[in-house]
Amino acid sequence: MFELSRNSSVALVDQICERITQLVRAGTLSPGTRLPSIRKLARQVRASPFTVVDAYDRMVARGLIESRAGRGFFVTQQRLAAPLVAIEGSFADSSDALALAQLCLAPCSDIVPAGSGFLPENWLLDGVCASVLRRLSLRRGTQPWLPCPPQGLPELREQIATRLVQHGVAAGAANIMTTYGASHAFDLLARLLLAPGDTVLVEDPGYFVLFEQLRAHHVRLIPVPRHAEGPDLEALEAACRAHHPRAFFMQTLVHNPTGWSAEPAHCHRILSLAERYGFAVIEDDVYGDLYEGSAVRLAQIDGLRHVVYVGSYTKLIGPALRVGYVAADPGLIARLTERKVLSVLSGSALLESFVSEMLDGGRYKRHVAEVRARLARMRGAARSALESAGITFAGAPGEGMFLWGRVPDAAPVQELVRRARAQSILLASGTLFSAGGGCGQWLRFNVAHSNSPPLVEFLRGALRAA
Amino acid sequence: MFELSRNSSVALVDQICERITQLVRAGTLSPGTRLPSIRKLARQVRASPFTVVDAYDRMVARGLIESRAGRGFFVTQQRLAAPLVAIEGSFADSSDALALAQLCLAPCSDIVPAGSGFLPENWLLDGVCASVLRRLSLRRGTQPWLPCPPQGLPELREQIATRLVQHGVAAGAANIMTTYGASHAFDLLARLLLAPGDTVLVEDPGYFVLFEQLRAHHVRLIPVPRHAEGPDLEALEAACRAHHPRAFFMQTLVHNPTGWSAEPAHCHRILSLAERYGFAVIEDDVYGDLYEGSAVRLAQIDGLRHVVYVGSYTKLIGPALRVGYVAADPGLIARLTERKVLSVLSGSALLESFVSEMLDGGRYKRHVAEVRARLARMRGAARSALESAGITFAGAPGEGMFLWGRVPDAAPVQELVRRARAQSILLASGTLFSAGGGCGQWLRFNVAHSNSPPLVEFLRGALRAA
Repeated sequence: MFELSRNSSVALVDQICERITQLVRAGTLSPGTRLPSIRKLARQVRASPFTVVDAYDRMVARGLIESRAGRGFFVTQQRLAAPLVAIEGSFADSSDALALAQLCLAPCSDIVPAGSGFLPENWLLDGVCASVLRRLSLRRGTQPWLPCPPQGLPELREQIATRLVQHGVAAGAANIMTTYGASHAFDLLARLLLAPGDTVLVEDPGYFVLFEQLRAHHVRLIPVPRHAEGPDLEALEAACRAHHPRAFFMQTLVHNPTGWSAEPAHCHRILSLAERYGFAVIEDDVYGDLYEGSAVRLAQIDGLRHVVYVGSYTKLIGPALRVGYVAADPGLIARLTERKVLSVLSGSALLESFVSEMLDGGRYKRHVAEVRARLARMRGAARSALESAGITFAGAPGEGMFLWGRVPDAAPVQELVRRARAQSILLASGTLFSAGGGCGQWLRFNVAHSNSPPLVEFLRGALRAA
Repeated sequence: MFELSRNSSVALVDQICERITQLVRAGTLSPGTRLPSIRKLARQVRASPFTVVDAYDRMVARGLIESRAGRGFFVTQQRLAAPLVAIEGSFADSSDALALAQLCLAPCSDIVPAGSGFLPENWLLDGVCASVLRRLSLRRGTQPWLPCPPQGLPELREQIATRLVQHGVAAGAANIMTTYGASHAFDLLARLLLAPGDTVLVEDPGYFVLFEQLRAHHVRLIPVPRHAEGPDLEALEAACRAHHPRAFFMQTLVHNPTGWSAEPAHCHRILSLAERYGFAVIEDDVYGDLYEGSAVRLAQIDGLRHVVYVGSYTKLIGPALRVGYVAADPGLIARLTERKVLSVLSGSALLESFVSEMLDGGRYKRHVAEVRARLARMRGAARSALESAGITFAGAPGEGMFLWGRVPDAAPVQELVRRARAQSILLASGTLFSAGGGCGQWLRFNVAHSNSPPLVEFLRGALRAA
């Protein structure tokens, strides 16, 4: 029938499935044809009967063959019904922001992801090697497979609180609720704290998916310009007087897209305004672990009174984990947990145990130190390469994953982004990061992907022509 | 310093951590004390230096000890800040329905979970043995660790569609979007399809968390009585005429809490009404795989025109997986995927790959067959035991995880539930399952937990007294 390769990296069971699938697709094995018995095929291809049983089970599960009691395995007759459509759901009608999120989450292998929000795959994989899974199954027994309490796995909440205490934030496990990443936290906070028509302040530039999330709640976004030292305090106070905002969403450290970190004195002023005008500050700290040295966070100064703190392990451990958290007053955490039950019922004990094991083994700390060092090394080179192509940079040099670069006024940026896409280069347009429709001449670059010859060459050519 | 046990099931690294933690807590090792060097401790306890390094790393990560460059490891000085509160966020103010969900998700080991919505832990663990994880890391390479496309992992969507086609539902991968369980699907559907003030029809009795989810969207719930053969058609039509509903949420097969499955002729009538009155039918099929024999689903008759189909692997593979899905028209799936991006950004490739591997290997099919057989065996015994205590059952015998039993009129049910809780027995009160405030004399029993002597004895005593 066919022969198996003993030297292949493909397991024998998968080779058997592949070969029979090919024979069915080619029509060599037509519908209704009986397959060799398990023993016979095992002899023919010199594999164990167990391997053949496994292969037949898989093909039955895939609907390619069927088992008839006492008679053996047969190629399935045609499907009962044809699929409705072959076209995948597209983002054609969606906003540019959602389209960018979609492109970042489903990257093609042949693209230069200069505008992506993710670290390179191999950086992430260093952090999540199979030994974590082995350790998980040994040390924790059955816990990863059981229901997860809606507030989050108690030991993970303890660990998160311990880390916050190390950052000077007074927190215990009761102050923590886990989420499926920071985006889930923002959505739950918006659902709990905001009503349609409310005014919300956001940084400009700032995190683009957050703007779309808030717009979906029908709130009014007022942009506050972000500088290297922090949000513009005059603009912030003017917005407070004019609009009586309910909340201000802010990234204190290693701000996306600029990489800037706010100064402590600035943080104090913001909290004074929060107290005077009675708005909540949602501190987005998903990149804070990339800050080199000891940092001051709003949650530390404020002690979780006006500040609701949002963290995530998704950015640095990897997108597969999808574990973030909210740290806040326990009363707010109890109400947020109710919202979480109503939105997703609970988290996944498997994902939360995984993060807990990464933290407990010190593996997370080492992984973050490596990523930080790697980004610091690449940052200067990426910046020089982009400058050589005509991009300019303003303000403090910044840290972390992103560079915020300016395109010369003569070059039309939307046209540049479109032409880049045609050449398989993903650029992230600055306007996406501006709730006020500004930043038209800016681009966000991913440090790990921007010292790339095709990118630099493309930009150099396009900007010279302009 | 201390000795390690070579015969213990606790790993050496964990024994070292435990012993040193005890010495610190007892004050034998005071803050600032220097620990033995790695080599010295390894010699003392006859362990490998790697084991000691691992143990020290873990205690550093836990904040118990700290490393000082070139000088070794020291017991940490006191914490920077004390935890704010020791009290866990409680559900004291929340509805009874949310309290029950919370109790089911965070069970105590010494409780009789007669009202729980989950299968026993050991049943679930049979399905998720470590070999699935091993296979995952071998066959799929890096995929479980990469970003997950927002619509869901393409190969899992293919597999789900194949299974739907086997059920006679015309579907392809473009018709499927994954979610973090069925609850997440209901929430996204409500956010997309319903506006505050809309009227929605639900089955009475029906799934209690769904009612709370819908109420949180400020829609009006109209209960439609559920009988063994399906929803009451006269009541359904009357509700359509009076209220012009936007949607009807219905469990066709192995209905929660009754275990009943609707008859095909009944399904036809419901779809005719959906067509005439222009409402969407959300078919909740999370227990459908527990149906013995070939079943007729609304999605099969309708072909995903008026029907939006919701499935889940959480109930039968286990709560840790948290993978469900929606099957619908591709246009609706594209809009739902946008809502999913705005609520959680994306799913977890690790969880979705795990489910994909369970399906592909035929393991899911075998696991479900075992669970179904086990429930069928226990169902009769549980029913007899409860009948002997004074509970009565009406209508068809039903299938699946739940028995819907009636308490004699003389017994006050809320009092019964409270007294049971005081004796560590969790009962699920029938009123929770009624959006219309009925079912006051009913209880939902979990088949796997109800043939329990303490439960039967408690019920017998309490019902005899009444």
